[in-house]
Amino acid sequence: MQIKVGVIGATGYAGAELVRILSAHPHAELVALTTQSYGGKAFCEVYPHLYKHVALECRELDLPALAEQADVIFAALPHGHVVPVAREVLARGKKFIDLGADFRFDSSEVYEQWYKVEHTAPELLRQAVYGLPEVHREKIKTASLVGNPGCYPTSVILGLAPLLRSGLVDTGTVVVDSKSGVSGAGRGLSLGTHFAEVNENFRAYNVGVHRHTPEIEQELGKLAGEEMRISFTPHLTPMNRGILSTIYAKLKREMTLEQVRAVYEEFYRSEYFVRLLPPGILPQTKAVAGSNHCDVVPVVDPRTGRVVVLSAIDNLIKGAAGQAVQNMNVMFGLPETTGLERPGLYP
Amino acid sequence: MQIKVGVIGATGYAGAELVRILSAHPHAELVALTTQSYGGKAFCEVYPHLYKHVALECRELDLPALAEQADVIFAALPHGHVVPVAREVLARGKKFIDLGADFRFDSSEVYEQWYKVEHTAPELLRQAVYGLPEVHREKIKTASLVGNPGCYPTSVILGLAPLLRSGLVDTGTVVVDSKSGVSGAGRGLSLGTHFAEVNENFRAYNVGVHRHTPEIEQELGKLAGEEMRISFTPHLTPMNRGILSTIYAKLKREMTLEQVRAVYEEFYRSEYFVRLLPPGILPQTKAVAGSNHCDVVPVVDPRTGRVVVLSAIDNLIKGAAGQAVQNMNVMFGLPETTGLERPGLYP
Amino acid sequence: MQIKVGVIGATGYAGAELVRILSAHPHAELVALTTQSYGGKAFCEVYPHLYKHVALECRELDLPALAEQADVIFAALPHGHVVPVAREVLARGKKFIDLGADFRFDSSEVYEQWYKVEHTAPELLRQAVYGLPEVHREKIKTASLVGNPGCYPTSVILGLAPLLRSGLVDTGTVVVDSKSGVSGAGRGLSLGTHFAEVNENFRAYNVGVHRHTPEIEQELGKLAGEEMRISFTPHLTPMNRGILSTIYAKLKREMTLEQVRAVYEEFYRSEYFVRLLPPGILPQTKAVAGSNHCDVVPVVDPRTGRVVVLSAIDNLIKGAAGQAVQNMNVMFGLPETTGLERPGLYP
Amino acid sequence: MQIKVGVIGATGYAGAELVRILSAHPHAELVALTTQSYGGKAFCEVYPHLYKHVALECRELDLPALAEQADVIFAALPHGHVVPVAREVLARGKKFIDLGADFRFDSSEVYEQWYKVEHTAPELLRQAVYGLPEVHREKIKTASLVGNPGCYPTSVILGLAPLLRSGLVDTGTVVVDSKSGVSGAGRGLSLGTHFAEVNENFRAYNVGVHRHTPEIEQELGKLAGEEMRISFTPHLTPMNRGILSTIYAKLKREMTLEQVRAVYEEFYRSEYFVRLLPPGILPQTKAVAGSNHCDVVPVVDPRTGRVVVLSAIDNLIKGAAGQAVQNMNVMFGLPETTGLERPGLYP
Repeated sequence: MQIKVGVIGATGYAGAELVRILSAHPHAELVALTTQSYGGKAFCEVYPHLYKHVALECRELDLPALAEQADVIFAALPHGHVVPVAREVLARGKKFIDLGADFRFDSSEVYEQWYKVEHTAPELLRQAVYGLPEVHREKIKTASLVGNPGCYPTSVILGLAPLLRSGLVDTGTVVVDSKSGVSGAGRGLSLGTHFAEVNENFRAYNVGVHRHTPEIEQELGKLAGEEMRISFTPHLTPMNRGILSTIYAKLKREMTLEQVRAVYEEFYRSEYFVRLLPPGILPQTKAVAGSNHCDVVPVVDPRTGRVVVLSAIDNLIKGAAGQAVQNMNVMFGLPETTGLERPGLYP
Repeated sequence: MQIKVGVIGATGYAGAELVRILSAHPHAELVALTTQSYGGKAFCEVYPHLYKHVALECRELDLPALAEQADVIFAALPHGHVVPVAREVLARGKKFIDLGADFRFDSSEVYEQWYKVEHTAPELLRQAVYGLPEVHREKIKTASLVGNPGCYPTSVILGLAPLLRSGLVDTGTVVVDSKSGVSGAGRGLSLGTHFAEVNENFRAYNVGVHRHTPEIEQELGKLAGEEMRISFTPHLTPMNRGILSTIYAKLKREMTLEQVRAVYEEFYRSEYFVRLLPPGILPQTKAVAGSNHCDVVPVVDPRTGRVVVLSAIDNLIKGAAGQAVQNMNVMFGLPETTGLERPGLYP
Repeated sequence: MQIKVGVIGATGYAGAELVRILSAHPHAELVALTTQSYGGKAFCEVYPHLYKHVALECRELDLPALAEQADVIFAALPHGHVVPVAREVLARGKKFIDLGADFRFDSSEVYEQWYKVEHTAPELLRQAVYGLPEVHREKIKTASLVGNPGCYPTSVILGLAPLLRSGLVDTGTVVVDSKSGVSGAGRGLSLGTHFAEVNENFRAYNVGVHRHTPEIEQELGKLAGEEMRISFTPHLTPMNRGILSTIYAKLKREMTLEQVRAVYEEFYRSEYFVRLLPPGILPQTKAVAGSNHCDVVPVVDPRTGRVVVLSAIDNLIKGAAGQAVQNMNVMFGLPETTGLERPGLYP
Repeated sequence: MQIKVGVIGATGYAGAELVRILSAHPHAELVALTTQSYGGKAFCEVYPHLYKHVALECRELDLPALAEQADVIFAALPHGHVVPVAREVLARGKKFIDLGADFRFDSSEVYEQWYKVEHTAPELLRQAVYGLPEVHREKIKTASLVGNPGCYPTSVILGLAPLLRSGLVDTGTVVVDSKSGVSGAGRGLSLGTHFAEVNENFRAYNVGVHRHTPEIEQELGKLAGEEMRISFTPHLTPMNRGILSTIYAKLKREMTLEQVRAVYEEFYRSEYFVRLLPPGILPQTKAVAGSNHCDVVPVVDPRTGRVVVLSAIDNLIKGAAGQAVQNMNVMFGLPETTGLERPGLYP
């Protein structure tokens, strides 16, 4: 099988990572790369690492042609711009995977409250599936419209899922402290991504008001079977790739590390991409950089009765493009690891 | 007044930073720099940034001579090695400022439990003052023996002191998530400080068991007037200098941001080194790098009822050498800012 | 003496560094900080490291008022915008130090050829002095108009001056390979200064066509007493501050390292800021970061008959703001090191 | 075909990179990973990025068993330790690829002069082939013993080969200024690779005396058909991976950029891994990081009559492990790109 693939918004970091992964995917064929900024330029002049690997030119979006030509379309666009695209693609019976936030929410009210724009297609929202295969695999198999999870949410949900599903932690005590590399902010220009401002600097941002908060709460809440309110603080760390989330929660009852690890082992037994690291080894972003893995380790602190979960991903891969391809594989009945098997780079 | 100063352990990062600061201090005169590794070598060959600024040679420790020669002695040694030095110095009526952990604890039991060595001078422990001037200034003024605070504890205690002193937070809910640059690990060699292992990497370490935990709990407990147990997770971030602590606690009652800021304003009104940044500006490590400032900002999250405090220091200055010099200034009746007035470097 | 100082273009990196240095200069008083972008904002909100150190607000340029108020005006503006400012300042009998390129050239033709704009004040060019005190100190003492050297040229000219003045190298063989931190590109936004593009990357730019080339050639030529053509390649290295220039030239005759070092020792005997490091220690950018020093070391390669000179500066200090203040000190008869004595930060 | 592969010295950076590449090579089967330091430990505990990808344990070297078991053996050991290994492997009719320096030289005298140890197998030296496929492919095809090139030499030889083979540059004028990431120094501990010493620092080392100098001169000399002496200066840049070499030479006669580019196009027409980038795009280390490519671009400077060649590689891949696998492919008659086709990671 060859799946014909179009990428909308291909010249941002998430888009370019999609192109890189798909260019080496044995069952995918890139048919169109669209962009607002580089129309007519060879893609590999915008991203010279792909010279000799990607021959396509960037072009401006011609949606009907693209929807005709491709079997599946990925969009890596700012939120609020994707609904008309999704409508057209779905109308032609093709599949759509959105890397933005427009199809991640069960409730358009929550979306509108946090993203400050109207959601113009609540009916598509009802049809969309939240694309975290480790949690929603069965629904993704038959979905036409997938909202690919945010980078922070991926790390947090995978970090807490076993504990919440088992009802082991007090849901009101969850504190999430996440640290991200700079590529998560995209390739756009801002003082906040200027090298000299980021390098040798560490800072928090959007404390208590980051838009990934309700997305995390929605999915954690489903796992826990009750509404959840968490504290979530994202931080910018001077590196390109990687997210480490440090997650704190009170255990409902005293548990040993072995008991907690057993819950994780059971939950992730058949998952390839989530790795419960052996005792004594903690997740670190470098160990997942360049791969689709999420490394997870729980630590029990008997002094405080808290469990501290460390969860690491490559924000551009498991946190964006890799997970999107994983979703494509699930949607098209391919082995889930196709095109995503390679280990990352170290150091 | 010229204070004659000796530095023991001068060639580690904290020691070298002491030398740098003291070399430009208008009322200090460096009389001896001792080291185990570089005896006989010019100090500025070990640290070429001080070429033309420091003419002394490194020498091996001759304690009686040193105690005779100096008015005050700083030690930047691994824990467990300082007691005999302190004894000798104090016996000769000189002052002693220890940058290590041996004189930070009220209780030798707590020290021994966390540091796994016997404390051989509990009587000195009783005499020692915890050298955080913003909290213990009056005692420091008359102290001969000061235990200079750890880097993480400095950032955390200054971050929480106003809230705890006022009894505004639920002490059982405190979670501290700290991130440090690599110089905090010292100049010694280990795989954990190898450039290629740290660069483009972010990781936690010593989760729940870091030795700064009881030091933080001791001082927070004194401020709160009750025993405290906190969750404390240190992380290594790929930069040289700086600590950012993100501190979470439940407010006992609903408070506005303005009310919380007013508590901080009141508490730090007359402190030069602690800066409550204006609304809208968050602490970042780069803004304090190279200075003795601690930047603090509380954020109120009404959704969760938590306050999130951000606190930033330069781990080698306010977290070590700068604070030690600040203590010296207090002990000798100098203006507290002497030799420490300069702003940091940016970017 | 208190010198009243105005800074035009104060919110770029070079401008902010001027403000930082001057805020701690014992004989300078900042009277106005002008900027195009932040009018009305407190300077320390734009640069929070200066909170509590600089109380001035940014304001838009009112040239007559500024020229009236200040004894000396520094401008850190893009080239081509400074002539009218200089005219006005000089007309009122005040001194002017330009950190840009408009007053660095002896010949307006050379300037126009490389900078692609007309020079509208050749008569001021004749009056201007090239502000490298180690070479042109006597002229600077009586100058009203100083063209502060570029960052690369400072490192290169100081690196080669002793050899050229002595006529020891074949001037046709000079190759200069320079590496700069990112702050040299300023605080403006461009893909080339985006963190994720620079970090973990090393690249050359403007190969053979960088505008500092003619400036270097002009000054090297004067030292050599003949016209010079050099190869100059600048590179961007993933760090904030610092330039290292590696300079190659054929020796006219065989010389030992001792003989070459003797030439440097003689040339820089009475210079405080230039440091000929002891044998066995090579310049590195970290050893000068935060200081006004230029570290220089020549190496003789008997196999090839070449001398290789390493020269390191902090591009924002000796390469810009520090040198400008050094020039101010010379122009006002102050000790040259005033406000610039502090060693840099390490690590 | 499945090639059975053993790796000696598998836990250094070059060794681990071999393991990573070979673990995904469709015609290679890792049979043994030997190490001095981690015997008995799972390889993926030493390198957690390979968890779930490499199941082998590290073991101590049992040479006869290894030589029996494997079809080809790679060694990533310090120089001077490989001769007995090579003897044993070759005696059993297996192939040997050495990533160290012991089999790179035509002359044992040159080796001994620069490496300060005796070469105990000059007869093997005569048998060995210098493993740069783009230059010596035919000999590699039939070789049993390959000396894999050094990282710097790979970048320099590929950068200059077209010009030297064509006799276009004055061989006495070649100056090579190379910049390397830190992984090139290996995983061993030293102050020179301590994070805080390297980060925010740029420095040269081994000026004029680096051991890659004679290796470069040997190969350049063969291409030029005459003995060559070059100036070579390596530098350490604060990043993990990548080498950029900036190479200067006088053209014998005036040439246009187009003429020079035509020489490169012709020379590299059928090479997959060497990429002559399109006009206007310069090599940068990030564009080759994670891949086996060498990006090369010549620039002509008519002002000085010099050509400046930029050449970029990933030091651990094309500069070490990737090139070694490329050699294996050639030696076993596989398509040269097998296991090496993937593009690198960006950013």
